[in-house]
Amino acid sequence: MSQIMDLSTQNGVDMENARRRITIGVERVTWFLYSEDPFGVIALLFANLLACCVDGRDRWLQKQKIDKVLSEDPVFSKTGRPFQSRKDRYDSGARMTNRIFELQESLGWTPEETSLAEFILAEPLPISLHDTAFAPVFLSQACPSLLAEYSFLTTHHGIFGAYLQTELGHGTNVTSLETTATYIPETKEFELHSPTLSSSKWWVGALGKSATHGVVQAKLILPGGKDMGPHLFFVQLRSLQDHKLLPGVITGDIGPKAFGGYASTDNGFARFNRVRIPKRYMLSKFASVTDSGEYVKPPHAKLNYAGMVHIRAGLVTNCAWLMAKAATISIRYATVRRQGTKGPDGLEVPVINYPSVYVRLLPILSRAYVFLELARKMTTSFNAMSSRLATGDMSLVAELHATTSGLKILGTTHCIADLESARRSMGGHGYSAFSGLANLYADYVPSVTFEGENYVLDQQTVRAALKAFQAITTSSMPTSSLQPSVRYLRLLIEEAPPRITPASLADPSTLVLLLEWRAVALVKNFALMLQRKPTATRADGSNPQDVEDATAYQRVSRAITEAFVAGQVEEMLEELNARDRKEEKLGQREVVIVKKLYTLYLLMTIETSLADFVTFDLLRVLSSEISSDAVSALRYAIAQVCSELLPEAIGLTDAFGFSDWELNSALGRYDGKAYQTLWEKSQLDPLNEKEVPDAYEESIRPMLLRGQRQAWKASCRAKM
Amino acid sequence: MSQIMDLSTQNGVDMENARRRITIGVERVTWFLYSEDPFGVIALLFANLLACCVDGRDRWLQKQKIDKVLSEDPVFSKTGRPFQSRKDRYDSGARMTNRIFELQESLGWTPEETSLAEFILAEPLPISLHDTAFAPVFLSQACPSLLAEYSFLTTHHGIFGAYLQTELGHGTNVTSLETTATYIPETKEFELHSPTLSSSKWWVGALGKSATHGVVQAKLILPGGKDMGPHLFFVQLRSLQDHKLLPGVITGDIGPKAFGGYASTDNGFARFNRVRIPKRYMLSKFASVTDSGEYVKPPHAKLNYAGMVHIRAGLVTNCAWLMAKAATISIRYATVRRQGTKGPDGLEVPVINYPSVYVRLLPILSRAYVFLELARKMTTSFNAMSSRLATGDMSLVAELHATTSGLKILGTTHCIADLESARRSMGGHGYSAFSGLANLYADYVPSVTFEGENYVLDQQTVRAALKAFQAITTSSMPTSSLQPSVRYLRLLIEEAPPRITPASLADPSTLVLLLEWRAVALVKNFALMLQRKPTATRADGSNPQDVEDATAYQRVSRAITEAFVAGQVEEMLEELNARDRKEEKLGQREVVIVKKLYTLYLLMTIETSLADFVTFDLLRVLSSEISSDAVSALRYAIAQVCSELLPEAIGLTDAFGFSDWELNSALGRYDGKAYQTLWEKSQLDPLNEKEVPDAYEESIRPMLLRGQRQAWKASCRAKM
Repeated sequence: MSQIMDLSTQNGVDMENARRRITIGVERVTWFLYSEDPFGVIALLFANLLACCVDGRDRWLQKQKIDKVLSEDPVFSKTGRPFQSRKDRYDSGARMTNRIFELQESLGWTPEETSLAEFILAEPLPISLHDTAFAPVFLSQACPSLLAEYSFLTTHHGIFGAYLQTELGHGTNVTSLETTATYIPETKEFELHSPTLSSSKWWVGALGKSATHGVVQAKLILPGGKDMGPHLFFVQLRSLQDHKLLPGVITGDIGPKAFGGYASTDNGFARFNRVRIPKRYMLSKFASVTDSGEYVKPPHAKLNYAGMVHIRAGLVTNCAWLMAKAATISIRYATVRRQGTKGPDGLEVPVINYPSVYVRLLPILSRAYVFLELARKMTTSFNAMSSRLATGDMSLVAELHATTSGLKILGTTHCIADLESARRSMGGHGYSAFSGLANLYADYVPSVTFEGENYVLDQQTVRAALKAFQAITTSSMPTSSLQPSVRYLRLLIEEAPPRITPASLADPSTLVLLLEWRAVALVKNFALMLQRKPTATRADGSNPQDVEDATAYQRVSRAITEAFVAGQVEEMLEELNARDRKEEKLGQREVVIVKKLYTLYLLMTIETSLADFVTFDLLRVLSSEISSDAVSALRYAIAQVCSELLPEAIGLTDAFGFSDWELNSALGRYDGKAYQTLWEKSQLDPLNEKEVPDAYEESIRPMLLRGQRQAWKASCRAKM
Repeated sequence: MSQIMDLSTQNGVDMENARRRITIGVERVTWFLYSEDPFGVIALLFANLLACCVDGRDRWLQKQKIDKVLSEDPVFSKTGRPFQSRKDRYDSGARMTNRIFELQESLGWTPEETSLAEFILAEPLPISLHDTAFAPVFLSQACPSLLAEYSFLTTHHGIFGAYLQTELGHGTNVTSLETTATYIPETKEFELHSPTLSSSKWWVGALGKSATHGVVQAKLILPGGKDMGPHLFFVQLRSLQDHKLLPGVITGDIGPKAFGGYASTDNGFARFNRVRIPKRYMLSKFASVTDSGEYVKPPHAKLNYAGMVHIRAGLVTNCAWLMAKAATISIRYATVRRQGTKGPDGLEVPVINYPSVYVRLLPILSRAYVFLELARKMTTSFNAMSSRLATGDMSLVAELHATTSGLKILGTTHCIADLESARRSMGGHGYSAFSGLANLYADYVPSVTFEGENYVLDQQTVRAALKAFQAITTSSMPTSSLQPSVRYLRLLIEEAPPRITPASLADPSTLVLLLEWRAVALVKNFALMLQRKPTATRADGSNPQDVEDATAYQRVSRAITEAFVAGQVEEMLEELNARDRKEEKLGQREVVIVKKLYTLYLLMTIETSLADFVTFDLLRVLSSEISSDAVSALRYAIAQVCSELLPEAIGLTDAFGFSDWELNSALGRYDGKAYQTLWEKSQLDPLNEKEVPDAYEESIRPMLLRGQRQAWKASCRAKM
């Protein structure tokens, strides 16, 4: 058959032309993005290794090297993945895990490089739960004798660990967990037990079929039945000889996840039937039990926050790279996809030129740039907190807990919405599994409900802000001593927000100020509302007037976090200016464009929450300089910065440095050849192996024959 | 092992207690929901059969009867579905299709009952494309000789049809399609041809492996190369003897869909290599070609709109029932799920009592009730349009096209968001495939991009409104002649929106007025903006100042549609009052509660678009009657109506009449036994068949052995 592959060829031509329009140095921006630990706290397990500073260019080359190894290894092939069953996905996940460590040994990867390889692979493997949940808790809280036995096995994956916290009937509220660990002084043992069906450990990553050991959250019961609340215990689940379950332990896979997500991870359940463990298996660095069964208190409760802060900070870094993937895939496809009205070249217009498309995609690009920097800043803060913690100094824990809570909500909310919004922007083909975005959504959407449900966590953000607000308004604490998370509260003593002019809407500092003013207004209003609020509650503890509070928590929490991020963006801008002056890696043109991205982020943040700004009358124009209303002026400013960024969009996505193998998207290919790739991928579909499908003989043929018989009868009747 | 199944048992107790608090007659509400064709235009293919009016109770019993047949038939078992591969899903889809028609014959189902069975089954089967796309087009547009041959085969499924429109490189803009149908006068044939890779038909349901015949959109080329644009042609794809592809035809499956959606449908591609078809295979009811190759014009272009209107109206009906499923599952689980603070009974509080939960779920419930009525009203309008069309009267087509476009956007946007919001409200367990909501999202999320991409379609809604606006403002058309879709424009001659009092916020009529005022303000403002807009455009046809327009189209389109819906809600309220007076099926108490649902819908609609209301100063309080600001008063009104609806929530979801088999949700069971069911479903996971997984020998064991060897080496080094 003759194949004039015009539009498929046009795809490539369009992408080349788009690249020709770029005025920034893409490599410079890449090196900027890869400088100073771009993978944030993800690699912090190996924090000591980060000290060896490689610059952005070296790190980028290192990433490319590892990407090449993975992409050429058949074990990591992504080709068959969309056609596999759940069980196949688990099996190939285990194969990948083993191969990663095989490569680590044979190629002499550092732990940091292995961690980078797992990050590039971006497949949620069971082993990641060992590394991010089991190992940190075990290594930081086990007693010396237990560490002597298991620390090397833990770090080298000689055992496979799981972290058993949530139960079938219990989520984040650990105080309600039902699993018990009863101390038996006679034998110096604990007895782990699952007294009810709802006490079954549930959702635990790697627990179903992979893990050999676990750390279990269980209620510590002391002699006399005294319930000391949840504590951590180390337990062996399976034999290291043959992987069989140890007596009294039942585990299994809890079943497939929504959207086919986390398919290679065996999130599992576990039930314990009076399983005995030695006393030293209690993780007793902070709280312990004497031989006779006396409780020894933990020195400081706040130490437990460090782990949460670490995981949440890691989530934000992940979110930033996911936004980058969403922006790259969708902007590349929008650049080569032509639909609708015909342009002067006689072809339909590339959809990236439609305002309804780029007004959705460029903000995702801007968020990716802001959150990548934000993640880096959080790494710095986390390192500072960790070194102070090492000397017993707790001063930074509360601040970092407050900011990471807010950022966890904001980052996951944006990231999940952006993945879907980018996918949907690709129209019909976006619904193909080959688009490469749906699987990311499927794997990452639980981040809005795990590690602090976003709708619960926002109350913590608000409470921290209210505390600072009270401190300032009642005890006249000086505003100069405000932590970054509540620095916006300094405006409490200012009179009014700045008036808007066309120039100020292009000036990030004004936008930062507006976002800070909004946080002040909402926190103040919320504090007043709490004072006025009737204290009557219903019998079940809820308050009939609480609806207002309910949505208020989300609004106030968001305002607080966005004010904090705005403050951070202001710092980023200062750093960019310094970079500019020092003529470091980013050139002047690149600095201009990155600044525009930050500006777009700030403008969109205001636009998305216009109701707040208008309700509290925070958008006031300076009428001598501006004729339209403030809202129109704001939207015009967004139009302006979008039109300036549009020609650089492809360059700014290229700068993230994703390989085609890494993105695994038919639509977001570097060379733009979307249609050709969709065609090629569809040819591998197992359904296409046979011309006549298996279903024909069994189902389709009987249906057609029945229909033909009925049609014949009906036509005879009609003729009579 | 002893199993005190306390919390699992508590699930059931909690559900029973919730049912005890209900004050409405659930069955009465069910009959109300099932009266007057609740499945809307879905069954309109069989419009003649709808004349036999059964009342709500009869229809509900009919549904239960069919539900029982399906749920007891192993072919329709949903148990293994989450574990199947894509190919297995296709095979079992074909099996279900054949079984449906087998049952139709053996049980003597009417076509309407068969249609109802497919609706209850809610599995997107390839055959549904035959019924909703292929058959209506073929039956309404084929010439008499073609109909004589194929109409009975079509209605009885003696052939399996597909509707081939979109191409790899082309979406909804049919004028750009590349497939050609060239007329050859010598043989009186058309030659179908796919000249390029991008002209491959793509995404076509049932085309890959199932369909035997198709209707193809192709450019009609007349002698001399004259391109007449897209026309429809009937074509046979596969042999009815052995299902092999006919010469010159290549088809195949395009691959899996995002999130594992539409797994049982073989969305396919097709390429034609100069395939000849007889002249009478052109669907020539409206346009035709003479033997010598002269073009005969269609009588009226608007006739094509009827099909689109039909499909979009069907989507809205589907959306309404999906919202009902989302509300049922999430509210049931929230009623039995206890988390967080402990109540007076010593147990944690059921999460439905948390404002941050019910403020998300009750609005979904209210939308389901509004959209179910809305779908019914659209059916009435559609029937009126159809009967007028039958007499050549086009007067209702434009109006119905405008309203169904807007409702398609609003309905699909809400429905898709509600499915995810309901799923996420269920916390961790919501991410289990057993939650029963993720698969609905996966199957229905393409509705936001197909049948009119929501971001493209909103321009049509806005244009229709602008046209009416111009007619009133320039030609002084009387406002009394306004169609329902733009009735809000009558307010153009009014002075100001009503002032808000506590009473008016509980009065739906005021809320309807406010929503209409908002549409007026936005349409007027948009019209003025268009007048002011610079006409300069860029070379590619886009306008750098278009961003404002881009987001404006969405805002204005939404305001217009929500004003229309508000007007419809006002009618529903009047009908409820009439029903009340006539003492029909709904009793007084039920009418009060349904009214509150409608009120909540209106309040939430205002709250969600507060930015519009505040920007245009539409929320003004009557200061003598209300002390707080309007926004706080609005939120307090929402709190009030939510707290009044809360005790009825379980009854209102029960009233939808879903069976457990139909919902297929471990969390949304009628008896509330969520934990017990999650446990039971997980036991069927194929991964749990073996205690030691297959992956152990191949992957996990080598990893552990390597780790143990490395750990041993490391410990030796440490000891040195």
